[in-house]
Amino acid sequence: MKYRREHQNLRIPGPVPCPTEVIDAQTRPLIDHRGQDFGHMLKNLVERLKRIFLTENDVFILTSSGTGALEASLVNTLSPGDKILAVVTGFFGQRYSDMAKALLIDVEELHFEWGRDIDIGILREALATHPDIKAVLVTHNETSTGVTNDLASISRVVKKEFGKLLLVDAVSSLGSVELKTDDWECDVVAAGSQKGLLTPPGLSVISFSESAWRAYEKSSMPKYYNDLGLFRTFMGIGQTAFTPAISLLYALDKSLELILREGLDSFIDMQREQAFMIRSKVRSLGLGLLAEDRCASHSVTAVKVPENVNADDLVDLLLDEYSIVVGRGQGSLKGKLLRVGHIGKVPEQEIQDLVSALSSALTRI
Amino acid sequence: MKYRREHQNLRIPGPVPCPTEVIDAQTRPLIDHRGQDFGHMLKNLVERLKRIFLTENDVFILTSSGTGALEASLVNTLSPGDKILAVVTGFFGQRYSDMAKALLIDVEELHFEWGRDIDIGILREALATHPDIKAVLVTHNETSTGVTNDLASISRVVKKEFGKLLLVDAVSSLGSVELKTDDWECDVVAAGSQKGLLTPPGLSVISFSESAWRAYEKSSMPKYYNDLGLFRTFMGIGQTAFTPAISLLYALDKSLELILREGLDSFIDMQREQAFMIRSKVRSLGLGLLAEDRCASHSVTAVKVPENVNADDLVDLLLDEYSIVVGRGQGSLKGKLLRVGHIGKVPEQEIQDLVSALSSALTRI
Repeated sequence: MKYRREHQNLRIPGPVPCPTEVIDAQTRPLIDHRGQDFGHMLKNLVERLKRIFLTENDVFILTSSGTGALEASLVNTLSPGDKILAVVTGFFGQRYSDMAKALLIDVEELHFEWGRDIDIGILREALATHPDIKAVLVTHNETSTGVTNDLASISRVVKKEFGKLLLVDAVSSLGSVELKTDDWECDVVAAGSQKGLLTPPGLSVISFSESAWRAYEKSSMPKYYNDLGLFRTFMGIGQTAFTPAISLLYALDKSLELILREGLDSFIDMQREQAFMIRSKVRSLGLGLLAEDRCASHSVTAVKVPENVNADDLVDLLLDEYSIVVGRGQGSLKGKLLRVGHIGKVPEQEIQDLVSALSSALTRI
Repeated sequence: MKYRREHQNLRIPGPVPCPTEVIDAQTRPLIDHRGQDFGHMLKNLVERLKRIFLTENDVFILTSSGTGALEASLVNTLSPGDKILAVVTGFFGQRYSDMAKALLIDVEELHFEWGRDIDIGILREALATHPDIKAVLVTHNETSTGVTNDLASISRVVKKEFGKLLLVDAVSSLGSVELKTDDWECDVVAAGSQKGLLTPPGLSVISFSESAWRAYEKSSMPKYYNDLGLFRTFMGIGQTAFTPAISLLYALDKSLELILREGLDSFIDMQREQAFMIRSKVRSLGLGLLAEDRCASHSVTAVKVPENVNADDLVDLLLDEYSIVVGRGQGSLKGKLLRVGHIGKVPEQEIQDLVSALSSALTRI
């Protein structure tokens, strides 16, 4: 995959730089979204997305950011007053929980220190303590801390031991971190276009299991734009329920072609090796990493700064003086770390530029 | 404005063909949506959108199709069980009403024959009969029938006489049909990017009045992705609440530049004259038009076909043999008419091609 060399080195966790062909695909002529050509493209997109999700469940493409798909995971399976368990390991886990609360769902929160992953034993205890829980919300890859939770083990507890609905925020994992939707019995997996799918932001994707459809039948949550029942009906005639973001679908069409041509496995292997290299180079500067190696994300790395440094100043300096854009700490981690996104193949020179800039900036701050 | 000559003459009511510069703007490099450059662009977009809405109300850009903004008009002002009046003059008026019902709102429907516009006297009667109504839903330009409702007169009844919230579906009117949000006291106006804003689909826009904000404070509707309170908070720091569709915002940025450079008034005048010419040319073929001249839309024209002709066959023939894509009849009008979209300046040759193709196709069917 080729990338245009831009004036900025965009190293936030998302949107990620997209391959040149993906960017250019957006300029294809718009077509009738109720016509046959569109229907063929849509079917083809969904079939290939299933190969990314590794699922035979229904998969839908929503015209929204990843948050829209996360909301869809809740409004299509739950009703106001339903009790759920939200496992919070960082800013985005908290946001998923807050979203459920805004939707009048009765949320029990299970907290882990930001930077740690989910402890399976404690999760099991929580589920045993609250037998009335209907669903469990899990953030697969917590973008705010650079931690990937062990979804396979989590699933064994949530699904095999307790038989609860498993709703997964995969916004920053799908496509870049191993995620086996069917093997791990994930009922709903929600993600955005602008991370592992290497597509500009504005689309989200969601997989929906048979159990999720059974929950859908019981859900009394008011919904329309995110009602997956409407999506399913229209998919049956090769259409979307509402006017889709056609130019972004063109981009997704191209990115799926590129990812699957390279092979999902080799793409994910590349992400693993690349993350390892970046962690090792950052460590060689004497900087600490928030996540333990064991659960370190392959898509984003949270870098701790020396105690006397305000990380936000460092982020500003990297932008102003080195044209490198990295993410800031969020929530309780604000000012304490910077976050380097590395989804997609990052040219070695850019990694070297980033490390050199970090090294140089640290001496100036 | 220049348009690329495509292989198809896309004459559906939307998405509309976009100026070449707008299409190409989508390829600008992605930037950090939490950074300053993005903040400047967002502020600038909203300021210019206000000049299209002709409003000083808050205006927000949503990552969704127009339906998302319509849903936002409801979930931010109403609660389940609230009583409203939905005025239905066609397929999209019915859909707006159905959406409200799906959101558990208590909907009183006021129906007019499809192809007619709203009768002000009957509207007044309905409001007098149902004093417990909180809001009135109006489709400004009914895309399914090619009828523009007289929003100025409607507003005088809804706002001045009865003081109800006025929620307007302007998906196919904003930017192409005269719409004075403030002068006509429209509390909420919702539209999509892919029609009068000459931008690819995937964004929607919404204006929200002070009265709407007062209704927001009382709304208990479960919401998150469409919660305009979150949008307002983030606008305060030059951000969107959720990752925005950056490449589509680039396109909107360019289209607003083009529209405002030409001038909204002259753009709307052009639409009026163009619609008049198209109606006149279609009539010269001996075909009838669904809408009376008095309330005929300037963005879409519904053409009646001879009684012995199935309009859908004609639509297929135009596509297969003439590479012209027009819209079909919807709902109860299916098979009875075809719909020609004419938002944006349509090259005279394309209009002539369409008329010639229609003339030729009618002899073959």
